Amino acid sequence: MSKKLVIDTDGVADDVRAISLAIQHPDVEVLAITTVIGCVNVTQATANVARTLRANGLETDSIPIYRGAAEPLIGNNHDPTHEAHFFGEDGIGGKPEEFPSVEYNDFNAAVEDVHAASALIKLFREHKGEAILVCLGPLTNVALALKLEPEFASWPKSVHVMGGNLFGAGNVKSYSTAEFNFSNDPEAAHIVIEKMKVPLTVVPWECFLFPSVDSTVDFHAHLELDAPLAKFFSTATSVGRAALEPSGVQYAYCDEITMASAICPNVILEKRELRGTVELHGSITRGQLALDWTERLWSDVFLASGKFCDKRPKITFVEKYDIPLLDKMIREAVLNSAKPQSE
Amino acid sequence: MSKKLVIDTDGVADDVRAISLAIQHPDVEVLAITTVIGCVNVTQATANVARTLRANGLETDSIPIYRGAAEPLIGNNHDPTHEAHFFGEDGIGGKPEEFPSVEYNDFNAAVEDVHAASALIKLFREHKGEAILVCLGPLTNVALALKLEPEFASWPKSVHVMGGNLFGAGNVKSYSTAEFNFSNDPEAAHIVIEKMKVPLTVVPWECFLFPSVDSTVDFHAHLELDAPLAKFFSTATSVGRAALEPSGVQYAYCDEITMASAICPNVILEKRELRGTVELHGSITRGQLALDWTERLWSDVFLASGKFCDKRPKITFVEKYDIPLLDKMIREAVLNSAKPQSE
Amino acid sequence: MSKKLVIDTDGVADDVRAISLAIQHPDVEVLAITTVIGCVNVTQATANVARTLRANGLETDSIPIYRGAAEPLIGNNHDPTHEAHFFGEDGIGGKPEEFPSVEYNDFNAAVEDVHAASALIKLFREHKGEAILVCLGPLTNVALALKLEPEFASWPKSVHVMGGNLFGAGNVKSYSTAEFNFSNDPEAAHIVIEKMKVPLTVVPWECFLFPSVDSTVDFHAHLELDAPLAKFFSTATSVGRAALEPSGVQYAYCDEITMASAICPNVILEKRELRGTVELHGSITRGQLALDWTERLWSDVFLASGKFCDKRPKITFVEKYDIPLLDKMIREAVLNSAKPQSE
Amino acid sequence: MSKKLVIDTDGVADDVRAISLAIQHPDVEVLAITTVIGCVNVTQATANVARTLRANGLETDSIPIYRGAAEPLIGNNHDPTHEAHFFGEDGIGGKPEEFPSVEYNDFNAAVEDVHAASALIKLFREHKGEAILVCLGPLTNVALALKLEPEFASWPKSVHVMGGNLFGAGNVKSYSTAEFNFSNDPEAAHIVIEKMKVPLTVVPWECFLFPSVDSTVDFHAHLELDAPLAKFFSTATSVGRAALEPSGVQYAYCDEITMASAICPNVILEKRELRGTVELHGSITRGQLALDWTERLWSDVFLASGKFCDKRPKITFVEKYDIPLLDKMIREAVLNSAKPQSE
Ligand SMILES: [Ca+2]
Ligand SMILES: [Ca+2]
Ligand SMILES: [Ca+2]
Ligand SMILES: [Ca+2]
Repeated sequence: MSKKLVIDTDGVADDVRAISLAIQHPDVEVLAITTVIGCVNVTQATANVARTLRANGLETDSIPIYRGAAEPLIGNNHDPTHEAHFFGEDGIGGKPEEFPSVEYNDFNAAVEDVHAASALIKLFREHKGEAILVCLGPLTNVALALKLEPEFASWPKSVHVMGGNLFGAGNVKSYSTAEFNFSNDPEAAHIVIEKMKVPLTVVPWECFLFPSVDSTVDFHAHLELDAPLAKFFSTATSVGRAALEPSGVQYAYCDEITMASAICPNVILEKRELRGTVELHGSITRGQLALDWTERLWSDVFLASGKFCDKRPKITFVEKYDIPLLDKMIREAVLNSAKPQSE
Repeated sequence: MSKKLVIDTDGVADDVRAISLAIQHPDVEVLAITTVIGCVNVTQATANVARTLRANGLETDSIPIYRGAAEPLIGNNHDPTHEAHFFGEDGIGGKPEEFPSVEYNDFNAAVEDVHAASALIKLFREHKGEAILVCLGPLTNVALALKLEPEFASWPKSVHVMGGNLFGAGNVKSYSTAEFNFSNDPEAAHIVIEKMKVPLTVVPWECFLFPSVDSTVDFHAHLELDAPLAKFFSTATSVGRAALEPSGVQYAYCDEITMASAICPNVILEKRELRGTVELHGSITRGQLALDWTERLWSDVFLASGKFCDKRPKITFVEKYDIPLLDKMIREAVLNSAKPQSE
Repeated sequence: MSKKLVIDTDGVADDVRAISLAIQHPDVEVLAITTVIGCVNVTQATANVARTLRANGLETDSIPIYRGAAEPLIGNNHDPTHEAHFFGEDGIGGKPEEFPSVEYNDFNAAVEDVHAASALIKLFREHKGEAILVCLGPLTNVALALKLEPEFASWPKSVHVMGGNLFGAGNVKSYSTAEFNFSNDPEAAHIVIEKMKVPLTVVPWECFLFPSVDSTVDFHAHLELDAPLAKFFSTATSVGRAALEPSGVQYAYCDEITMASAICPNVILEKRELRGTVELHGSITRGQLALDWTERLWSDVFLASGKFCDKRPKITFVEKYDIPLLDKMIREAVLNSAKPQSE
Repeated sequence: MSKKLVIDTDGVADDVRAISLAIQHPDVEVLAITTVIGCVNVTQATANVARTLRANGLETDSIPIYRGAAEPLIGNNHDPTHEAHFFGEDGIGGKPEEFPSVEYNDFNAAVEDVHAASALIKLFREHKGEAILVCLGPLTNVALALKLEPEFASWPKSVHVMGGNLFGAGNVKSYSTAEFNFSNDPEAAHIVIEKMKVPLTVVPWECFLFPSVDSTVDFHAHLELDAPLAKFFSTATSVGRAALEPSGVQYAYCDEITMASAICPNVILEKRELRGTVELHGSITRGQLALDWTERLWSDVFLASGKFCDKRPKITFVEKYDIPLLDKMIREAVLNSAKPQSE
């Protein structure tokens, strides 16, 4: 039986790889893709998803795309969309003429008059307990769905989030300990972390920070394969790879880990369960995941001390993943894109 | 040539071991000890230091004790002094009749009419660039010294702080990511971290959290030695050892690591340099060290992006320390206390 | 030509009087009423609105009711709904058997499957520039509408909000400077204040605080009239009047001022235009309106100093209103309820 | 019997007038003047005080000056000292050659090696319950005194503070609701407001904001008198008067009200007692006085509701002062400066 996935995304380079991983996987059915402002605006994100479908050999209406939030709930002071130096102007390399070249209709590919938040509610109401939600961008759409329909909290089979941090390491700027997706909409992240009542897996950005520097895997090898997705991924990651080249750091996986954790749980080698929430009020920590490490050490010892509280649900954090396995999954997705599509 | 140390302390169990380590070390001269409110009030902290001197075979006036802050600059909402379930009512086991039994004069052992902050200014002005400051409690006294005399920032040879965190792990309660010393006076920690202009070594509490669970060293062995400090340490740690016993966790080192890093730098096996500051405004992260991990990955790559800032001084964090070496140092201090004192 | 109004309300005593004022006014057409959690939960708020329609001699489906947010976006720590000591358990006196007695269908009176936020978007899209939005409760529904459809910001003719403060005076508890509606959903208030692009009139709670103590008007007189609304208002305000009685303070107007400002602008005697926003991050000021008084004094003098910023839209604050005129409007509404309804 | 005053000041135009008011008053003895960073740095503030003594016909050592904090405890992001456009580069008109022309020794006029905070402790310990503390600048010195000696809280007869706000009106910049003195050192203001245990009178900046626009008093008349202080005040206020001139706003009183409230209580026409504290954590409200208006209305009614708390001491806010009386006091001080000094 195939896994049913709904993907929420801001449609940049890592996202299109993660989306393609799902589309090309033989055991996965992508029910819908919802788009959100993140590294690029929501119109661009929508167009990128449409182009990704075409890169995968699909029609742009083969999987319904729902356009979502054009702005965060509150947001941050700093410009949330300026990551062009790493992802290119359009978030996927800034080369609209490359395969598959951008089409005018990509920008209108979304289902008309249905907001992503409404679509999420409708989809998971129809597939209660059986569809998985994979979140690759800021969590604005999911938070709006929870606010419009609090019962949404119990409907997904599980939720897999790329974002946040396990060790307080930020990646937006020096004076912030927030990860990009959480930083862009801290309130949305707070709502999702606090309200979801189904198993929640978070891939914190330290998954990328720590191992990516040392890994012996050649993260760029699959870009040389003779397949449509190899060309597209090469374009999508071109700006980031060029930016990283001087330092010898490879362009590694990130959103792809999250997608893999939803499709193939044994890609997770080490995980850690902690309770926590998203800090909203810090001047530097706004958007950071604030976790309860006290419980881990002391829950058996100091139950009576009032020092810890076990009311909040636990979050499962991915600490280490099987890099070669994920790389193999990516390669297979790329190779699969060269075969005729049946979906 | 011996190292000159000034020790600022809240005088609880870990502190008295760390202080004794310095007193008993052949190459260390302790110029003075200053006391501060922390796990116990400042009067108790002062008495505990006096008793510690006696446990080391010294007169209580052999090393000048200066009494400092009776309250934090602003403090936190939760009661800062209630750690009796782990340290005992007096912070060192709650057994006043045990060796060396508490004397009335212990509570009046401090130099009269000189506040610890004034003493710090005077001491380091006299020993510019040659005395080391070791901080084992909340940083209120040091912050006051910096505010009364901004040039104090350049006078110590180096500063070694037990407190704060490297990975956002708190140890006070579930809804806080602050470490105890920083949590008790976040503004003081902020001032010290931001203002000191000499090498600053921080022993974050994760040094205790992560390795202490797995270590194969017997942290309790030295308590069985036939020496005055063995008796005193056994008393001082008795409540904590009993509290931890059911979970099989040993009562390990903490403030002792900080003292060792000042006396014998090769006790540090791994360290990490990061810039950062203390968050003052978070609802959960107030008092947490908020560090800049972005620079580490991107400093060579994205200098032009404006994402990071290299203006703040770097903090040296101890990540791993040589547990057997520190344990050996403690044992030697204990054994040394059985020999006649010459100081 | 009649004024078209849409009313968003948490359905407690002041709200039902304000709603009735609109219903009974000869020049007003109430297009719809949307409900939100506030002093009571959203189901109770919905039922109270239905009962209010019946008290006004209308069928419960004569004006469409849309049920909205069951919880705030983020909310506050303190229980947002416990105002029973002032408004009664149901928010309108806690006497379900009184006229018009509560009916089971009151709780199901809302239009099915259309969230208040969606209804607001649909209504104001249809009546662009001609319908007025009157907000009598927390601003959750309006904020959700703005987030689902950013263009909503330009569609109302004007927006009239009961809530917030002009002088930093709170009314929820000692350690908060927030007014009740803003305190219950600070983020929603922030979004509405920052995003609306049409004239925004705010009736701050100081309108109630300052004059209500001194006024010579008999605020209770209309409760003695021989008319259906007199009975209903008497029930709805009974708990509050009893609570205030010992101190000699009358139960005066509040939400009614806001409604009057929308229907009959000359009820406003003094107003003040200031720019500002809603503080989200203070420990005591969270939810307070933080206003720019600097501009008022210095805009002509210190334009070059960089001290002030004129980018944000101005808010019109009601400072003084015509108490006798409003009282007359209420009396007329009550008397009108005794006449046969034509609507 | 004369009133004993200690004045803490940042030494700008308003301060020198207030200080002169005290010096020239027949019933006042100024025990000492302490200086603090504020509109100008602490060295300049010290020199300005020395020059003020000379303008009053005194030797610079006739009243001991103690130099205090060179920086706030934590401070704000914005530059705290840049008010040159209103006060001149030196804070008193920027005309060093004018009467009395600046002397080199003005900058060294402070008592050597005694910090203002230490001096405050010493002075009020000697004059327990009989000396009044008048604070005209940021409260850093007073906060340090309280932290070094908590008993200081009970030693002044009363404390009179220029600073903070009663109605949430800021005067530093558009995006702040803090008054200048409190904004420059919010933590210090917090400490003084929360910790002082003697009667505390606050002159909020709204005392200046509201009446100064309408007043019919000629605030500039005394500058034309034939007396030393007229010349000096004319210089000290010259930049501010020129800045205000285009808008027709007069340069009115501010710090002078605070001084008058200490010397001659009947200058206060209306006052209001409220409990409150200084918000430290808001993004816009940091430094604002957050007051408890709830108690005023409801203390008699809702004691049981838990809504308010009466634990904190009350602050007396000056709401209206006797403008003609204060103006007369200033004029008399100016005229008195033309007579031979006996002090
Ligand atoms: Ca993404
Ligand atoms: Ca300690
Ligand atoms: Ca209401
Ligand atoms: Ca001043």
